[in-house]
Amino acid sequence: MWYQKSITLPEFSRGYHLITEIIRKNLPTLPQIGLLHIFIQHTSAALAINENADPSVRRDFRQFIDQLIPDGDKIFVHTLEGDDDMPAHIKSSLFGQSLVIPIVQGRLGLGTWQGIYLCEFRNFGGPRQLILTVWGE
Amino acid sequence: MWYQKSITLPEFSRGYHLITEIIRKNLPTLPQIGLLHIFIQHTSAALAINENADPSVRRDFRQFIDQLIPDGDKIFVHTLEGDDDMPAHIKSSLFGQSLVIPIVQGRLGLGTWQGIYLCEFRNFGGPRQLILTVWGE
Amino acid sequence: MWYQKSITLPEFSRGYHLITEIIRKNLPTLPQIGLLHIFIQHTSAALAINENADPSVRRDFRQFIDQLIPDGDKIFVHTLEGDDDMPAHIKSSLFGQSLVIPIVQGRLGLGTWQGIYLCEFRNFGGPRQLILTVWGE
Repeated sequence: MWYQKSITLPEFSRGYHLITEIIRKNLPTLPQIGLLHIFIQHTSAALAINENADPSVRRDFRQFIDQLIPDGDKIFVHTLEGDDDMPAHIKSSLFGQSLVIPIVQGRLGLGTWQGIYLCEFRNFGGPRQLILTVWGE
Repeated sequence: MWYQKSITLPEFSRGYHLITEIIRKNLPTLPQIGLLHIFIQHTSAALAINENADPSVRRDFRQFIDQLIPDGDKIFVHTLEGDDDMPAHIKSSLFGQSLVIPIVQGRLGLGTWQGIYLCEFRNFGGPRQLILTVWGE
Repeated sequence: MWYQKSITLPEFSRGYHLITEIIRKNLPTLPQIGLLHIFIQHTSAALAINENADPSVRRDFRQFIDQLIPDGDKIFVHTLEGDDDMPAHIKSSLFGQSLVIPIVQGRLGLGTWQGIYLCEFRNFGGPRQLILTVWGE
């Protein structure tokens, strides 16, 4: 079984956002065993899996990572698109632009506390394109 | 060919641990061409591939990453579960919770020096759940 | 459909290099729906996806990451292979050694600005081995 769908996320503010339900509602009936691949077609945003309950986790992600990889670091030469652009590229590759999640007995095999995050690193990133691919049997 | 197995790792101490042999002994006869996906169902631990020989590499990983993303950073608000909790969430998403390894002629296509690490970021993380999925032909 | 090929990259200098075209010319006619997995069999280099146009992005990646994870940090014990060795191991696991890219209507589903980077973290890393795997229908 193969399934593929391209979806456009609504525009999100800079920060970390739970998108698990958006992903779920774009999936077909899942195979008994298989995998879901989620890919974001951008270089200044990322996908991650993390804690799905307390919003303060998402707030702390933003605070800490923005401190670690700060806007407007003097070392950057690629600054034409703004102080948030080059840090966004670096964060994008450190978090990664794709996720692979196992499908177990017809359901996503996420742990109890695992949710899917859109990591929006730009101040005004605009709508983001994802490609969902499911394969299995 | 499809194969899937859920396994529970023994409890590991905080740090980086080689688990290549634990993974291997839970695999079936592998296909000639295929892939192995390993997924950890937690948000305060991770999986990585790195040097499999000298234990000082694993020690340096812990020292350096704990310095980069320190316990008890004043910026954190999500502190109810302890000083090591929020740093563990961040490390988990930076290292990543899944690995995809090619299967080449019936064997894992790891390089000579590549081993599979469990990255345990909590002081007392407890046993961790993995899902192994193999597909190929 | 399954396809697998092992390739040796030419030696690259320390830094971030676009290898999208090298990957493309080693691929077969792609399936309508599928995935490409790229794996690097090393622990001191990595693969990433990032901006494919302005070379200053690759320059800034090197400057910033080398500042964040510096050669010869006093915390390192694993120093026998040189000041650049242990930082290379850490960078390798943070960026990651594999990529999964969707195949959409017979083409790589990369976004307009996405290119494939070889991240060479050693001063003299030598030629690097990749394994390409394609599956789909």
